[in-house]
Amino acid sequence: MSSHHIVKEKQEPALIIANGESCSFSLLEELLEWSPFVVVLDGALDRVLELGIKVDVLLGDFDRNAHDLDDIRKRQFPIEIVHTPDQDKTDLEKAIDFLIERGFPAANIVWATGRRADHNFSNICILGRYPNTIKLKMLDDYSTIYRIAPLPDVFSKWFLAKTPVSLIPLYEATEITTSNLKYPLKKGDLKIGFRLGNSNEALSDGIVEISYVSGTLLIMECND
Amino acid sequence: MSSHHIVKEKQEPALIIANGESCSFSLLEELLEWSPFVVVLDGALDRVLELGIKVDVLLGDFDRNAHDLDDIRKRQFPIEIVHTPDQDKTDLEKAIDFLIERGFPAANIVWATGRRADHNFSNICILGRYPNTIKLKMLDDYSTIYRIAPLPDVFSKWFLAKTPVSLIPLYEATEITTSNLKYPLKKGDLKIGFRLGNSNEALSDGIVEISYVSGTLLIMECND
Repeated sequence: MSSHHIVKEKQEPALIIANGESCSFSLLEELLEWSPFVVVLDGALDRVLELGIKVDVLLGDFDRNAHDLDDIRKRQFPIEIVHTPDQDKTDLEKAIDFLIERGFPAANIVWATGRRADHNFSNICILGRYPNTIKLKMLDDYSTIYRIAPLPDVFSKWFLAKTPVSLIPLYEATEITTSNLKYPLKKGDLKIGFRLGNSNEALSDGIVEISYVSGTLLIMECND
Repeated sequence: MSSHHIVKEKQEPALIIANGESCSFSLLEELLEWSPFVVVLDGALDRVLELGIKVDVLLGDFDRNAHDLDDIRKRQFPIEIVHTPDQDKTDLEKAIDFLIERGFPAANIVWATGRRADHNFSNICILGRYPNTIKLKMLDDYSTIYRIAPLPDVFSKWFLAKTPVSLIPLYEATEITTSNLKYPLKKGDLKIGFRLGNSNEALSDGIVEISYVSGTLLIMECND
């Protein structure tokens, strides 16, 4: 993949490459197609460089990964290297904070899932932490995960019949109402430890609508 | 792997093989060493049979997976085939319910993680749903996940220094107090969407103790 040196307008979502399991190259290529602003967490740097991806920001505490930063600055010029030693946040949260500060309205996140259950679980939970500041989408080869906003917003998206659409609360979502789902909800509540809306699916080709009143609700579009 | 036809005493944990991503054969061999009572979810059956594992119970709604049940009965004799069409519970929950009903005090669960984020996430959440009835442990090649009980119980286990020990609330755990962890907690609260106890680790070789007052707390022992 060739490097890109075009002006980035902050209209396309930025891309965060976290330090979990790599996704397929085709998913990565698809996300890189519009030359997004690329933020890489330090634990992923070697794998990213091997793929020939131009990095805009390298971010991390650099405590576990020794890099020749001068060499990286030269090879990836221009690159911003952001040192984030704060132990109260994960590197992924710091990358999101960084993008919010820079005014990005949206970001895609890859390599944040898979392998270690603790990182996986906590990365997914992070999607619920930025309700009004940035639109986040987490992607891997099996799943696309994003938060939808509560009322007055209504989520509305066209799906093919039988597309899996799982509704996962973090930790709860109240008075959920859906249309065109196989297992419909009408002012139903979902709550971790009690009831999840797992393995639902679009009933027919067409618009699926989902609204809810309070809490945090994720949509997971997943395939085996 | 040869089949086993010895009497099972319900002292060793049963083994549930769910229908997610397969784990390494070595992990499976380790768990099968004491000839546990093996419950297989129908979506995993073909892969389990290929590995030559003796199945004690085959459980599922059999709606997506066509099996020649007569042939399976013959080849796996004695085997119990349990049809569970209830759509309000996942097959994994039904398997746990089945083991509770049969009086098993504990079960290990494999193939419940990996790949699809929705199944992965909801399977982990299931670990919080059976507080007093059965001890559950979910294992894959990177992670061992289990719930610990609140006070008056105190979790106590010997770890090597630097062993990763993540504390994940479902959805919250209050007044957590720890000893011998790198990032200690003293009557601290953890809550999804606010604060997780991710990426903690044992401070020195020795006993780690963890207690909490209310809620649900999982321990995840993970490695890359």
